[in-house]
Amino acid sequence: MDIKYINPFIVAAQTVFKTMLGISAEMGKPALKTVNRTSGDVTGIMGLVGDKKGTVAISLREKGAKFVYKTLVGEECESISQDVVDAIGEITNIISGQARKEFEKNDINLNAAIPMVIVGKEVEMNFITKIPIISLPFYFSLDNGSSNDKEVIYVDFSFE
Amino acid sequence: MDIKYINPFIVAAQTVFKTMLGISAEMGKPALKTVNRTSGDVTGIMGLVGDKKGTVAISLREKGAKFVYKTLVGEECESISQDVVDAIGEITNIISGQARKEFEKNDINLNAAIPMVIVGKEVEMNFITKIPIISLPFYFSLDNGSSNDKEVIYVDFSFE
Repeated sequence: MDIKYINPFIVAAQTVFKTMLGISAEMGKPALKTVNRTSGDVTGIMGLVGDKKGTVAISLREKGAKFVYKTLVGEECESISQDVVDAIGEITNIISGQARKEFEKNDINLNAAIPMVIVGKEVEMNFITKIPIISLPFYFSLDNGSSNDKEVIYVDFSFE
Repeated sequence: MDIKYINPFIVAAQTVFKTMLGISAEMGKPALKTVNRTSGDVTGIMGLVGDKKGTVAISLREKGAKFVYKTLVGEECESISQDVVDAIGEITNIISGQARKEFEKNDINLNAAIPMVIVGKEVEMNFITKIPIISLPFYFSLDNGSSNDKEVIYVDFSFE
């Protein structure tokens, strides 16, 4: 996949993590996703259609999903409730919107579909495309670095 | 939801079931989908974007998915393999394409996203939209009516 189709997702994710979640996430090594399972426990998925066609999936572990909810809404939560699902849908929407802005700088116009959120560990999820799926892991500390506990947000995408 | 947004999905499903699968499926009562779980065991999902925005999910039980594979490919299969997943992706693609043609008759132009296929019973899947999700069940016999065994294909969709 051309780097110009990868960079918009990196820039979008970093920007949204910083501005919306207040975290400086460190990107790990990009990988080809060869396993057709959700990367985390809660996965927001957005289809992008326009001059090109793509899908982006934002996948978080339970702890990360609760952190996103707490940061966006300002309340603690016990479990992956409908409100947490909505928060992950929202952050998926925002990252996709930011990625679309980045693509526009390269004269690629895209529209966003209705986001979807899947809840479950290792749910079998197949993107029906010949194009490889790139998986970008973003690492961050939940407690501003005072411990060594690292959380991860996966940004997986495929772009035709 | 306006009937003019429902009919294209009904016509598309009936047409594709008839021409591609050789079945005369009988539509059951349309229902509002209030449970955020996949309706069947194998679920093809397609985002539609353009003048309007929508999502359609074609959900089959294991037996129905194997029937679709056998009908499209001409071979038997033991389990929900990658080939069966691809066949469900294909039929989702075809039904979406047919629905888009029907929408065009009403001057609504839509483009299709990359299809996705989820494998699993009652997987939690949330469409993040305020619009209701309509579920259309289509019943048919796998053995041309010689027994009373009915299979069902669910066509679930939401359209903004």
